[in-house]
Amino acid sequence: MATQPCRNKEAPVAFGGHCFADAGLLRQALTHRSAGSPHNERLEFLGDALVSQIVAEALYVQWPRAAEGGLTRARAELVRESALAGIARHMGLGEQLVLGPGELKTGGHRRDSILADALEAVVAAIHLDAGFEACRRAVLPWFAPLIAALPAPDKVGKDAKTRLQEWLQARQRNLPVYSLLEEGGDDHARTFKVRCMLDEPVVTVQGEGGSRRAAEQQAADAALQAIGA
Amino acid sequence: MATQPCRNKEAPVAFGGHCFADAGLLRQALTHRSAGSPHNERLEFLGDALVSQIVAEALYVQWPRAAEGGLTRARAELVRESALAGIARHMGLGEQLVLGPGELKTGGHRRDSILADALEAVVAAIHLDAGFEACRRAVLPWFAPLIAALPAPDKVGKDAKTRLQEWLQARQRNLPVYSLLEEGGDDHARTFKVRCMLDEPVVTVQGEGGSRRAAEQQAADAALQAIGA
Repeated sequence: MATQPCRNKEAPVAFGGHCFADAGLLRQALTHRSAGSPHNERLEFLGDALVSQIVAEALYVQWPRAAEGGLTRARAELVRESALAGIARHMGLGEQLVLGPGELKTGGHRRDSILADALEAVVAAIHLDAGFEACRRAVLPWFAPLIAALPAPDKVGKDAKTRLQEWLQARQRNLPVYSLLEEGGDDHARTFKVRCMLDEPVVTVQGEGGSRRAAEQQAADAALQAIGA
Repeated sequence: MATQPCRNKEAPVAFGGHCFADAGLLRQALTHRSAGSPHNERLEFLGDALVSQIVAEALYVQWPRAAEGGLTRARAELVRESALAGIARHMGLGEQLVLGPGELKTGGHRRDSILADALEAVVAAIHLDAGFEACRRAVLPWFAPLIAALPAPDKVGKDAKTRLQEWLQARQRNLPVYSLLEEGGDDHARTFKVRCMLDEPVVTVQGEGGSRRAAEQQAADAALQAIGA
Protein backbone atom coordinates (compact mmCIF):
# COMPACT_ATOMS: atom_id res chain seq x y z
CA MET A 1 0.00 0.00 0.00
CA ALA A 2 1.52 3.28 -1.12
CA THR A 3 0.92 5.30 2.03
CA GLN A 4 3.40 8.04 2.82
CA PRO A 5 6.18 7.42 5.34
CA CYS A 6 5.87 9.49 8.52
CA ARG A 7 8.36 11.94 9.96
CA ASN A 8 7.60 10.48 13.37
CA LYS A 9 9.65 7.26 13.43
CA GLU A 10 7.28 5.66 15.95
CA ALA A 11 4.38 6.05 13.53
CA PRO A 12 5.05 3.97 10.44
CA VAL A 13 2.53 5.47 7.99
CA ALA A 14 0.73 8.75 7.47
CA PHE A 15 -2.53 9.37 5.68
CA GLY A 16 -4.92 12.30 5.60
CA GLY A 17 -2.58 14.36 7.76
CA HIS A 18 -2.35 11.81 10.57
CA CYS A 19 0.63 9.64 11.53
CA PHE A 20 -0.73 6.21 12.44
CA ALA A 21 0.89 4.39 15.34
CA ASP A 22 -1.17 1.35 14.32
CA ALA A 23 -0.78 0.85 10.56
CA GLY A 24 -3.24 -2.04 10.75
CA LEU A 25 -6.07 0.34 11.58
CA LEU A 26 -5.38 2.35 8.44
CA ARG A 27 -5.17 -0.81 6.36
CA GLN A 28 -8.51 -1.99 7.69
CA ALA A 29 -10.08 1.41 6.97
CA LEU A 30 -8.94 1.18 3.35
CA THR A 31 -10.17 -2.40 2.87
CA HIS A 32 -13.55 -2.83 1.20
CA ARG A 33 -15.65 -5.80 2.25
CA SER A 34 -15.19 -7.29 -1.24
CA ALA A 35 -11.54 -7.93 -0.30
CA GLY A 36 -12.41 -10.02 2.79
CA SER A 37 -12.02 -9.49 6.53
CA PRO A 38 -11.13 -7.39 8.42
CA HIS A 39 -12.84 -4.79 6.24
CA ASN A 40 -13.97 -1.26 6.88
CA GLU A 41 -17.72 -1.55 7.56
CA ARG A 42 -17.59 -1.32 11.34
CA LEU A 43 -15.11 1.54 11.15
CA GLU A 44 -17.41 3.29 8.71
CA PHE A 45 -20.24 3.09 11.27
CA LEU A 46 -18.09 4.84 13.84
CA GLY A 47 -16.56 7.29 11.37
CA ASP A 48 -19.92 8.43 10.06
CA ALA A 49 -20.84 9.61 13.57
CA LEU A 50 -17.44 11.25 14.08
CA VAL A 51 -17.64 13.19 10.82
CA SER A 52 -21.14 14.39 11.68
CA GLN A 53 -20.00 15.60 15.05
CA ILE A 54 -16.78 17.27 13.93
CA VAL A 55 -18.61 19.09 11.13
CA ALA A 56 -21.50 20.02 13.44
CA GLU A 57 -19.13 21.59 15.91
CA ALA A 58 -17.17 23.46 13.23
CA LEU A 59 -20.41 24.99 11.93
CA TYR A 60 -21.65 25.78 15.44
CA VAL A 61 -18.45 27.72 16.16
CA GLN A 62 -18.17 29.33 12.72
CA TRP A 63 -21.78 30.54 12.60
CA PRO A 64 -22.53 31.82 16.11
CA ARG A 65 -25.85 33.35 15.09
CA ALA A 66 -27.16 30.76 12.63
CA ALA A 67 -30.44 29.10 13.50
CA GLU A 68 -30.68 25.33 13.87
CA GLY A 69 -32.24 24.90 10.41
CA GLY A 70 -29.31 26.53 8.62
CA LEU A 71 -26.81 24.50 10.63
CA THR A 72 -28.63 21.27 9.82
CA ARG A 73 -28.82 22.01 6.10
CA ALA A 74 -25.16 23.05 6.00
CA ARG A 75 -24.09 19.85 7.68
CA ALA A 76 -26.15 17.82 5.23
CA GLU A 77 -24.32 19.54 2.36
CA LEU A 78 -20.91 18.82 3.87
CA VAL A 79 -21.41 15.18 4.82
CA ARG A 80 -23.33 13.98 1.76
CA GLU A 81 -21.75 11.13 -0.16
CA SER A 82 -20.53 13.22 -3.10
CA ALA A 83 -18.83 15.74 -0.80
CA LEU A 84 -17.04 13.00 1.13
CA ALA A 85 -16.05 11.27 -2.11
CA GLY A 86 -14.60 14.59 -3.34
CA ILE A 87 -12.45 14.86 -0.21
CA ALA A 88 -11.35 11.25 -0.64
CA ARG A 89 -10.33 11.89 -4.26
CA HIS A 90 -8.43 15.01 -3.26
CA MET A 91 -6.28 12.94 -0.89
CA GLY A 92 -5.80 10.13 -3.40
CA LEU A 93 -7.72 7.62 -1.33
CA GLY A 94 -8.96 5.66 -4.35
CA GLU A 95 -5.48 4.48 -5.32
CA GLN A 96 -4.93 3.09 -1.84
CA LEU A 97 -8.18 1.17 -1.54
CA VAL A 98 -7.98 -2.58 -1.14
CA LEU A 99 -10.78 -4.07 -3.26
CA GLY A 100 -11.87 -7.54 -4.26
CA PRO A 101 -11.42 -8.63 -7.89
CA GLY A 102 -15.04 -7.86 -8.85
CA GLU A 103 -14.96 -4.31 -7.53
CA LEU A 104 -11.52 -3.76 -9.05
CA LYS A 105 -12.78 -4.75 -12.48
CA THR A 106 -15.85 -2.49 -12.33
CA GLY A 107 -13.92 0.58 -11.18
CA GLY A 108 -14.88 0.44 -7.49
CA HIS A 109 -11.97 2.71 -6.55
CA ARG A 110 -13.70 5.53 -8.42
CA ARG A 111 -17.20 4.97 -7.01
CA ASP A 112 -18.59 7.70 -4.73
CA SER A 113 -20.15 5.30 -2.24
CA ILE A 114 -16.98 3.25 -1.77
CA LEU A 115 -14.79 6.35 -1.48
CA ALA A 116 -17.12 8.08 1.01
CA ASP A 117 -17.41 4.96 3.18
CA ALA A 118 -13.65 4.48 3.23
CA LEU A 119 -13.10 8.12 4.13
CA GLU A 120 -15.43 7.73 7.11
CA ALA A 121 -13.58 4.57 8.08
CA VAL A 122 -10.27 6.46 7.98
CA VAL A 123 -11.73 9.05 10.36
CA ALA A 124 -12.64 6.28 12.81
CA ALA A 125 -9.19 4.75 12.41
CA ILE A 126 -7.55 8.05 13.38
CA HIS A 127 -9.87 8.35 16.39
CA LEU A 128 -9.05 4.83 17.57
CA ASP A 129 -5.34 5.38 16.87
CA ALA A 130 -4.89 8.67 18.71
CA GLY A 131 -8.14 9.89 20.33
CA PHE A 132 -10.79 12.42 19.54
CA GLU A 133 -8.72 15.59 19.63
CA ALA A 134 -6.15 14.19 17.20
CA CYS A 135 -8.98 13.06 14.98
CA ARG A 136 -10.60 16.48 14.93
CA ARG A 137 -7.20 18.12 14.23
CA ALA A 138 -6.69 15.88 11.21
CA VAL A 139 -10.24 16.03 9.87
CA LEU A 140 -11.11 19.73 10.15
CA PRO A 141 -8.67 20.83 7.41
CA TRP A 142 -10.30 18.38 4.99
CA PHE A 143 -13.58 20.25 5.34
CA ALA A 144 -12.20 23.78 5.62
CA PRO A 145 -12.45 24.62 1.88
CA LEU A 146 -16.01 23.24 1.73
CA ILE A 147 -17.06 25.21 4.81
CA ALA A 148 -15.50 28.37 3.37
CA ALA A 149 -17.45 27.87 0.13
CA LEU A 150 -20.85 27.50 1.82
CA PRO A 151 -23.43 30.23 1.15
CA ALA A 152 -24.73 32.21 4.14
CA PRO A 153 -26.43 30.16 6.88
CA ASP A 154 -29.94 31.23 5.82
CA LYS A 155 -29.26 30.31 2.19
CA VAL A 156 -27.45 27.02 2.46
CA GLY A 157 -29.21 23.95 1.17
CA LYS A 158 -31.95 25.99 -0.49
CA ASP A 159 -32.28 25.46 -4.20
CA ALA A 160 -31.58 28.22 -6.71
CA LYS A 161 -35.24 28.98 -7.47
CA THR A 162 -35.98 29.42 -3.76
CA ARG A 163 -32.93 31.64 -3.24
CA LEU A 164 -33.80 33.77 -6.27
CA GLN A 165 -37.40 34.15 -5.11
CA GLU A 166 -36.31 35.13 -1.59
CA TRP A 167 -33.79 37.66 -2.94
CA LEU A 168 -36.49 39.34 -5.06
CA GLN A 169 -39.15 39.23 -2.34
CA ALA A 170 -36.80 40.79 0.18
CA ARG A 171 -36.51 43.74 -2.23
CA GLN A 172 -40.23 43.80 -3.08
CA ARG A 173 -39.58 43.14 -6.75
CA ASN A 174 -41.56 41.07 -9.22
CA LEU A 175 -41.00 37.32 -9.24
CA PRO A 176 -39.07 35.68 -12.10
CA VAL A 177 -40.89 34.38 -15.15
CA TYR A 178 -39.81 30.95 -16.39
CA SER A 179 -40.76 29.78 -19.87
CA LEU A 180 -40.05 26.59 -21.76
CA LEU A 181 -38.06 27.31 -24.93
CA GLU A 182 -37.38 23.83 -26.19
CA GLU A 183 -38.09 20.21 -25.38
CA GLY A 184 -36.10 17.56 -27.22
CA GLY A 185 -34.31 14.23 -27.08
CA ASP A 186 -35.97 10.84 -27.08
CA ASP A 187 -37.94 9.18 -24.29
CA HIS A 188 -34.84 7.83 -22.59
CA ALA A 189 -32.94 11.11 -22.58
CA ARG A 190 -35.23 14.12 -22.79
CA THR A 191 -33.72 17.61 -22.69
CA PHE A 192 -35.41 20.84 -21.69
CA LYS A 193 -34.34 24.42 -22.31
CA VAL A 194 -35.91 27.09 -20.10
CA ARG A 195 -35.66 30.89 -20.03
CA CYS A 196 -35.72 32.91 -16.80
CA MET A 197 -36.56 36.63 -16.97
CA LEU A 198 -36.36 39.27 -14.25
CA ASP A 199 -37.58 42.80 -14.75
CA GLU A 200 -35.57 44.56 -12.04
CA PRO A 201 -32.72 44.34 -12.78
CA VAL A 202 -33.50 43.28 -16.35
CA VAL A 203 -32.00 39.83 -16.73
CA THR A 204 -32.64 37.15 -19.34
CA VAL A 205 -30.80 33.86 -18.89
CA GLN A 206 -31.29 30.24 -19.90
CA GLY A 207 -30.89 26.86 -18.32
CA GLU A 208 -30.87 23.30 -19.61
CA GLY A 209 -31.55 19.99 -17.96
CA GLY A 210 -33.01 16.52 -18.17
CA SER A 211 -36.30 17.75 -16.68
CA ARG A 212 -38.17 21.03 -16.79
CA ARG A 213 -37.48 21.47 -13.09
CA ALA A 214 -33.74 20.90 -13.51
CA ALA A 215 -33.62 23.38 -16.40
CA GLU A 216 -35.44 25.98 -14.27
CA GLN A 217 -33.00 25.47 -11.42
CA GLN A 218 -30.07 25.98 -13.77
CA ALA A 219 -31.69 29.14 -15.17
CA ALA A 220 -32.33 30.45 -11.64
CA ASP A 221 -28.71 29.76 -10.78
CA ALA A 222 -27.60 31.76 -13.83
CA ALA A 223 -29.92 34.60 -12.78
CA LEU A 224 -28.44 34.59 -9.24
CA GLN A 225 -24.98 34.88 -10.74
CA ALA A 226 -26.12 37.67 -13.09
CA ILE A 227 -27.44 39.76 -10.20
CA GLY A 228 -24.49 38.90 -7.98
CA ALA A 229 -26.70 37.34 -5.28
CA MET B 1 -33.61 26.78 38.78
CA ALA B 2 -33.34 23.89 41.21
CA THR B 3 -30.05 22.47 39.99
CA GLN B 4 -27.88 20.70 42.53
CA PRO B 5 -24.94 22.55 44.12
CA CYS B 6 -21.56 21.16 43.15
CA ARG B 7 -18.86 19.81 45.42
CA ASN B 8 -16.34 21.66 43.28
CA LYS B 9 -16.55 25.28 44.53
CA GLU B 10 -15.38 26.64 41.18
CA ALA B 11 -18.30 25.01 39.40
CA PRO B 12 -21.52 26.53 40.67
CA VAL B 13 -24.06 23.94 39.47
CA ALA B 14 -24.15 20.26 38.64
CA PHE B 15 -26.53 18.43 36.35
CA GLY B 16 -26.50 15.00 34.76
CA GLY B 17 -23.28 14.14 36.59
CA HIS B 18 -21.32 17.16 35.34
CA CYS B 19 -20.21 20.21 37.34
CA PHE B 20 -20.70 23.23 35.10
CA ALA B 21 -18.07 25.98 35.25
CA ASP B 22 -20.42 28.07 33.12
CA ALA B 23 -23.90 27.91 34.63
CA GLY B 24 -25.22 30.00 31.73
CA LEU B 25 -24.60 27.13 29.32
CA LEU B 26 -26.73 24.81 31.42
CA ARG B 27 -29.46 27.43 31.70
CA GLN B 28 -29.49 27.87 27.92
CA ALA B 29 -29.66 24.11 27.39
CA LEU B 30 -32.73 23.92 29.62
CA THR B 31 -34.50 26.85 27.95
CA HIS B 32 -37.09 25.98 25.33
CA ARG B 33 -37.55 28.41 22.46
CA SER B 34 -41.03 29.25 23.76
CA ALA B 35 -39.33 31.05 26.67
CA GLY B 36 -37.30 33.38 24.42
CA SER B 37 -33.61 33.72 23.61
CA PRO B 38 -31.04 32.39 24.21
CA HIS B 39 -32.81 29.05 23.87
CA ASN B 40 -31.55 25.53 23.31
CA GLU B 41 -32.07 24.90 19.58
CA ARG B 42 -28.48 25.47 18.47
CA LEU B 43 -27.18 23.43 21.38
CA GLU B 44 -29.59 20.66 20.44
CA PHE B 45 -28.09 20.57 16.92
CA LEU B 46 -24.63 20.03 18.38
CA GLY B 47 -25.81 17.67 21.11
CA ASP B 48 -27.63 15.40 18.69
CA ALA B 49 -24.32 14.73 16.89
CA LEU B 50 -22.46 14.23 20.17
CA VAL B 51 -24.98 11.71 21.47
CA SER B 52 -24.82 9.78 18.20
CA GLN B 53 -21.08 9.63 18.34
CA ILE B 54 -20.75 8.73 22.01
CA VAL B 55 -23.34 5.96 21.64
CA ALA B 56 -21.76 4.74 18.39
CA GLU B 57 -18.38 4.40 20.06
CA ALA B 58 -19.81 2.67 23.13
CA LEU B 59 -21.48 0.07 20.89
CA TYR B 60 -18.38 -0.31 18.72
CA VAL B 61 -16.29 -1.11 21.80
CA GLN B 62 -18.92 -3.23 23.56
CA TRP B 63 -19.68 -5.38 20.51
CA PRO B 64 -16.34 -6.11 18.88
CA ARG B 65 -17.77 -8.67 16.48
CA ALA B 66 -21.12 -7.08 15.58
CA ALA B 67 -21.71 -6.23 11.94
CA GLU B 68 -22.46 -2.70 10.88
CA GLY B 69 -26.19 -3.42 10.50
CA GLY B 70 -26.59 -4.50 14.13
CA LEU B 71 -24.60 -1.50 15.36
CA THR B 72 -26.74 0.88 13.31
CA ARG B 73 -30.01 -0.62 14.55
CA ALA B 74 -28.79 -0.59 18.15
CA ARG B 75 -27.83 3.05 17.93
CA ALA B 76 -31.23 3.91 16.46
CA GLU B 77 -32.87 2.21 19.46
CA LEU B 78 -30.73 4.14 21.94
CA VAL B 79 -31.01 7.62 20.44
CA ARG B 80 -34.68 7.60 19.48
CA GLU B 81 -36.79 10.32 21.01
CA SER B 82 -38.59 8.12 23.52
CA ALA B 83 -35.30 6.67 24.82
CA LEU B 84 -33.76 10.12 25.26
CA ALA B 85 -36.95 11.39 26.92
CA GLY B 86 -36.76 8.43 29.33
CA ILE B 87 -33.21 9.37 30.31
CA ALA B 88 -34.30 12.99 30.74
CA ARG B 89 -37.16 11.95 33.05
CA HIS B 90 -34.85 9.73 35.06
CA MET B 91 -32.63 12.74 35.85
CA GLY B 92 -35.59 15.02 36.58
CA LEU B 93 -34.91 17.26 33.62
CA GLY B 94 -38.57 18.16 33.12
CA GLU B 95 -38.81 20.05 36.40
CA GLN B 96 -35.84 22.20 35.47
CA LEU B 97 -37.02 23.15 31.97
CA VAL B 98 -37.62 26.83 31.28
CA LEU B 99 -40.76 27.03 29.15
CA GLY B 100 -42.95 29.81 27.79
CA PRO B 101 -46.47 30.22 29.22
CA GLY B 102 -48.17 28.32 26.37
CA GLU B 103 -45.93 25.26 26.70
CA LEU B 104 -46.22 25.38 30.48
CA LYS B 105 -50.00 25.29 30.29
CA THR B 106 -50.08 22.35 27.85
CA GLY B 107 -47.64 20.24 29.85
CA GLY B 108 -44.55 20.84 27.70
CA HIS B 109 -42.26 19.68 30.49
CA ARG B 110 -43.68 16.17 30.10
CA ARG B 111 -43.52 16.01 26.30
CA ASP B 112 -41.06 13.52 24.79
CA SER B 113 -39.85 15.85 22.03
CA ILE B 114 -39.11 18.74 24.39
CA LEU B 115 -37.38 16.48 26.90
CA ALA B 116 -35.27 14.71 24.25
CA ASP B 117 -34.21 17.99 22.65
CA ALA B 118 -33.25 19.50 25.99
CA LEU B 119 -31.26 16.39 26.91
CA GLU B 120 -29.28 16.71 23.68
CA ALA B 121 -28.74 20.39 24.43
CA VAL B 122 -27.39 19.50 27.89
CA VAL B 123 -24.89 17.13 26.24
CA ALA B 124 -23.66 19.97 24.03
CA ALA B 125 -23.48 22.29 27.03
CA ILE B 126 -21.23 19.82 28.87
CA HIS B 127 -19.02 19.50 25.77
CA LEU B 128 -18.67 23.27 25.43
CA ASP B 129 -18.14 23.64 29.18
CA ALA B 130 -15.42 21.04 29.62
CA GLY B 131 -14.50 19.31 26.34
CA PHE B 132 -15.26 16.04 24.67
CA GLU B 133 -13.71 13.64 27.17
CA ALA B 134 -15.63 15.19 30.08
CA CYS B 135 -18.77 15.03 28.00
CA ARG B 136 -18.32 11.36 27.23
CA ARG B 137 -17.56 10.62 30.89
CA ALA B 138 -20.82 12.27 31.94
CA VAL B 139 -23.01 10.89 29.16
CA LEU B 140 -21.97 7.22 29.00
CA PRO B 141 -23.49 6.32 32.39
CA TRP B 142 -26.87 7.69 31.23
CA PHE B 143 -26.95 5.10 28.47
CA ALA B 144 -25.32 2.21 30.34
CA PRO B 145 -28.60 0.62 31.55
CA LEU B 146 -30.11 0.89 28.05
CA ILE B 147 -27.03 -0.63 26.43
CA ALA B 148 -27.03 -3.45 28.98
CA ALA B 149 -30.70 -4.17 28.18
CA LEU B 150 -30.20 -4.44 24.41
CA PRO B 151 -30.75 -7.85 22.82
CA ALA B 152 -27.81 -9.45 21.01
CA PRO B 153 -26.36 -7.46 18.09
CA ASP B 154 -27.99 -9.65 15.45
CA LYS B 155 -31.40 -9.34 17.14
CA VAL B 156 -31.56 -5.67 18.05
CA GLY B 157 -34.10 -3.55 16.25
CA LYS B 158 -35.82 -6.60 14.78
CA ASP B 159 -39.45 -6.95 15.71
CA ALA B 160 -40.71 -9.83 17.83
CA LYS B 161 -42.28 -11.77 14.93
CA THR B 162 -39.01 -11.66 13.00
CA ARG B 163 -36.98 -12.73 16.03
CA LEU B 164 -39.38 -15.58 16.79
CA GLN B 165 -39.30 -16.77 13.17
CA GLU B 166 -35.49 -16.66 13.08
CA TRP B 167 -35.24 -18.56 16.37
CA LEU B 168 -37.49 -21.34 15.05
CA GLN B 169 -35.85 -21.48 11.61
CA ALA B 170 -32.38 -21.75 13.16
CA ARG B 171 -33.65 -24.90 14.90
CA GLN B 172 -35.53 -26.21 11.87
CA ARG B 173 -38.85 -26.14 13.67
CA ASN B 174 -42.30 -25.28 12.35
CA LEU B 175 -43.23 -21.62 12.09
CA PRO B 176 -45.72 -20.09 14.55
CA VAL B 177 -49.42 -20.01 13.74
CA TYR B 178 -51.21 -16.75 14.48
CA SER B 179 -54.99 -16.64 14.66
CA LEU B 180 -57.42 -13.82 15.34
CA LEU B 181 -59.49 -14.54 18.47
CA GLU B 182 -61.43 -11.33 18.83
CA GLU B 183 -61.95 -8.00 17.16
CA GLY B 184 -63.77 -5.29 19.08
CA GLY B 185 -64.07 -1.63 19.97
CA ASP B 186 -65.55 1.07 17.79
CA ASP B 187 -64.10 2.59 14.61
CA HIS B 188 -61.99 5.09 16.52
CA ALA B 189 -60.47 2.58 18.90
CA ARG B 190 -60.47 -0.94 17.53
CA THR B 191 -58.94 -3.74 19.57
CA PHE B 192 -57.61 -7.06 18.35
CA LYS B 193 -56.82 -10.23 20.28
CA VAL B 194 -54.52 -12.73 18.59
CA ARG B 195 -53.27 -16.19 19.54
CA CYS B 196 -49.78 -17.45 18.72
CA MET B 197 -49.11 -21.20 18.79
CA LEU B 198 -45.84 -23.09 18.53
CA ASP B 199 -45.63 -26.85 18.33
CA GLU B 200 -42.04 -27.34 19.51
CA PRO B 201 -41.93 -26.48 22.34
CA VAL B 202 -45.70 -26.43 22.72
CA VAL B 203 -46.60 -22.84 23.50
CA THR B 204 -49.93 -21.01 23.32
CA VAL B 205 -49.92 -17.33 24.15
CA GLN B 206 -52.03 -14.30 23.35
CA GLY B 207 -51.43 -10.68 22.43
CA GLU B 208 -53.62 -7.61 22.19
CA GLY B 209 -53.27 -4.37 20.29
CA GLY B 210 -54.92 -1.60 18.32
CA SER B 211 -54.22 -3.43 15.06
CA ARG B 212 -53.94 -7.05 14.08
CA ARG B 213 -50.23 -6.53 13.43
CA ALA B 214 -49.66 -4.99 16.86
CA ALA B 215 -51.53 -7.84 18.53
CA GLU B 216 -49.41 -10.39 16.64
CA GLN B 217 -46.22 -8.64 17.70
CA GLN B 218 -47.32 -8.73 21.31
CA ALA B 219 -48.18 -12.43 21.00
CA ALA B 220 -44.78 -13.14 19.41
CA ASP B 221 -43.10 -11.26 22.24
CA ALA B 222 -44.98 -13.41 24.76
CA ALA B 223 -43.89 -16.54 22.85
CA LEU B 224 -40.24 -15.41 22.91
CA GLN B 225 -40.49 -14.96 26.67
CA ALA B 226 -42.15 -18.35 27.07
CA ILE B 227 -39.30 -20.13 25.24
CA GLY B 228 -36.65 -17.98 26.92
CA ALA B 229 -35.31 -16.63 23.61
